[in-house]
Amino acid sequence: MKRTEEMVSSLRYDALQKRWVIIATERQHRPQDFGAGQSITVSREHCPFCAGREQQTPPEIAAIRPLHSEPDTPGWRVRVIENKYPALRISNAVWELGAEGFYETIPGYGAHEVIIEGPDHDKSFIDLPSDLAFDILSMYRERLNVHMDDLRLKYTLIFKNHGATAGASLLHPHSQIIATPVTPRTIRMELMSTLKHFAETNRCMICDMVQKERDEGERIIYDDGTIVAFANYAARFPYELFIAPARHETFYNRENDHTLHCLVNCLKDVLGRLRTLLSDPPYN
Amino acid sequence: MKRTEEMVSSLRYDALQKRWVIIATERQHRPQDFGAGQSITVSREHCPFCAGREQQTPPEIAAIRPLHSEPDTPGWRVRVIENKYPALRISNAVWELGAEGFYETIPGYGAHEVIIEGPDHDKSFIDLPSDLAFDILSMYRERLNVHMDDLRLKYTLIFKNHGATAGASLLHPHSQIIATPVTPRTIRMELMSTLKHFAETNRCMICDMVQKERDEGERIIYDDGTIVAFANYAARFPYELFIAPARHETFYNRENDHTLHCLVNCLKDVLGRLRTLLSDPPYN
Ligand SMILES: [Zn+2]
Ligand SMILES: [Zn+2]
Repeated sequence: MKRTEEMVSSLRYDALQKRWVIIATERQHRPQDFGAGQSITVSREHCPFCAGREQQTPPEIAAIRPLHSEPDTPGWRVRVIENKYPALRISNAVWELGAEGFYETIPGYGAHEVIIEGPDHDKSFIDLPSDLAFDILSMYRERLNVHMDDLRLKYTLIFKNHGATAGASLLHPHSQIIATPVTPRTIRMELMSTLKHFAETNRCMICDMVQKERDEGERIIYDDGTIVAFANYAARFPYELFIAPARHETFYNRENDHTLHCLVNCLKDVLGRLRTLLSDPPYN
Repeated sequence: MKRTEEMVSSLRYDALQKRWVIIATERQHRPQDFGAGQSITVSREHCPFCAGREQQTPPEIAAIRPLHSEPDTPGWRVRVIENKYPALRISNAVWELGAEGFYETIPGYGAHEVIIEGPDHDKSFIDLPSDLAFDILSMYRERLNVHMDDLRLKYTLIFKNHGATAGASLLHPHSQIIATPVTPRTIRMELMSTLKHFAETNRCMICDMVQKERDEGERIIYDDGTIVAFANYAARFPYELFIAPARHETFYNRENDHTLHCLVNCLKDVLGRLRTLLSDPPYN
C-alpha cells in the first residue's frame, strides 16, 4: 500500500459477542464517539457546510448541482463529501476473512461520507421544500447503488443525528453514510430472523408485520397505501418508529421515484408531529 | 392475580431483532431511561440511602448488619432494597414461553433491586475499606444465589452507574440488580460463542482468552495469579476492561472468599488508576 492510502483504522472481531468493532486511529483523540459529526459545535459564521465554503470541506464525491457547474463551487442542492475524520476508508487493502476467527483483525476498508442536505444552515428536514427532500432521499439511493457495486463492501448504513444531544456536532442539516466490509451483528440478526421466517412460512416477515399492524391498527401512525409507519411493538425507546414500504421490496435502492415521494410525505408528517408533540426533540 | 400484585410491566419479543424488551408502565413518566437510579439527583441532606433514613426507602430485602439488629434501622454495612420504580417484580404470574413468537408478550416477572454500598454518602468504591468492599461483592454473590433458586428467572445482571453522566441519579454509592425471566440477547450470543468454541476445541473460550492475553502481555492491566484484568481486544469504548478469574469458573456465585478478596484488590487498583488517569470519569 502507498503511504497516501495508509490505514485509518482496523476492524477487530469480538469472538465472544460475535461482532466486529472499528478500532480507529485518527479519530481516537476526538471528543465524540464513533458516528458523531466532524468536530465540536461550530457557529453559522464558520460552518464549512454552508454554500460558498466548499473549499473548507474534503472534496466533493457526488452532488446534485446544475449541469456543467464545477464540483466544489456553490449552486449545489445536495453534496456528498468524505467525513473529515473517516472511521473507514476505501484503499487497495487486500485481506481474507477467517471463519469468525478468535482474535481476528482486518483492515478498516470502507466508506464514511457526509451528505449535506442543502445549502441552508438553519432549515431542518421537515422545513425543506419537498423537491429538495426528495433529492436527499434519492442521493441516499445513489450512494447505496455505488457502494453495492463494490464487492468488498457488505453493508451500507445511512444515519442522521438531529440535535446536539443525539450526537450532531454540526448543526447544518446533514446525514452520514458508513459502508463496511462486514455485516453488522444487528443486521445479521435481522437476516437470520427473516430467513427463518421465510423458510417456515414462505412469507416475508416485514410484510407480515405490516399486515399485522394494519389488521390491529392501534400502532399505525401513517399509511398512504405506499408507505406505512407504525410504533414499534417492542420499542426500546419512546416514540421509536418503524417505516416500511407497503409493497414487498428488499432494497431501498430499488424503490422508484413515486415511493420516494411518498416517503418524503411520510417523514415530513411523522417528524412534524413529533416536533409539535415534543418541542423539537433530538433524534437518530 | 390479586390487585396488589398487578403487573408493573411486560416483556415483548422483538422477533426481527431476536430480543426481549421491557415495556414499563410505572416508569414511563420518569425523566431517565430504564436502568438509571431512583429520581433526579438529590442532595446529601435528603438522601434516602444515608444511615438513619431507612424508613424512606422500600423495605429491606437483605442486609449485612449486626446480629439481632432490626431490619430498616441503622447499623447496617450493606443494604438491599427493591428499586422504588421497579422495571420488573416478583409475582404469582403464570405464563408459557412460545417458540420465539411473532408478537409475543409475557408478564414483567423478575426482580429489580438496589444495593446500597455502605452508609457513607460520599465515599466511592475505591475509597471504601477493603472489608466493606468485600461485603458488597459477597452480597452480589448472595443475591445471585437467591435469584438462581427461582426457576422462573433465567438471568441476573448486576450493574453500577458511577457519575451523573453514566446515569446515576443518586450519588450515594449503590449498584442495581435486574433478574429477568428470559436470557438477554447479548448473553445468548456469549453462550452460543462459548458453546461453539467448546464443541470445536473442548476448551473454555474465556480460559483461552486469558491464556492468549497472558501470552501476548500487551493488554494485561492486572494479574495477581487469581484475577486477571485486560483491555478488551475488540473494545467498543475507550478504557473498556475485561476482568476474569485465572482459574476456570462459570459462576460468580461459586467463587470463594479468597477470590472475592482478590477481586476487591483488582477493582481498587484498576479503578484507582482510571481515576488518576482520567480525573474521576463516569463509568458503568
Ligand atoms: Zn451551515
Ligand atoms: Zn446518602
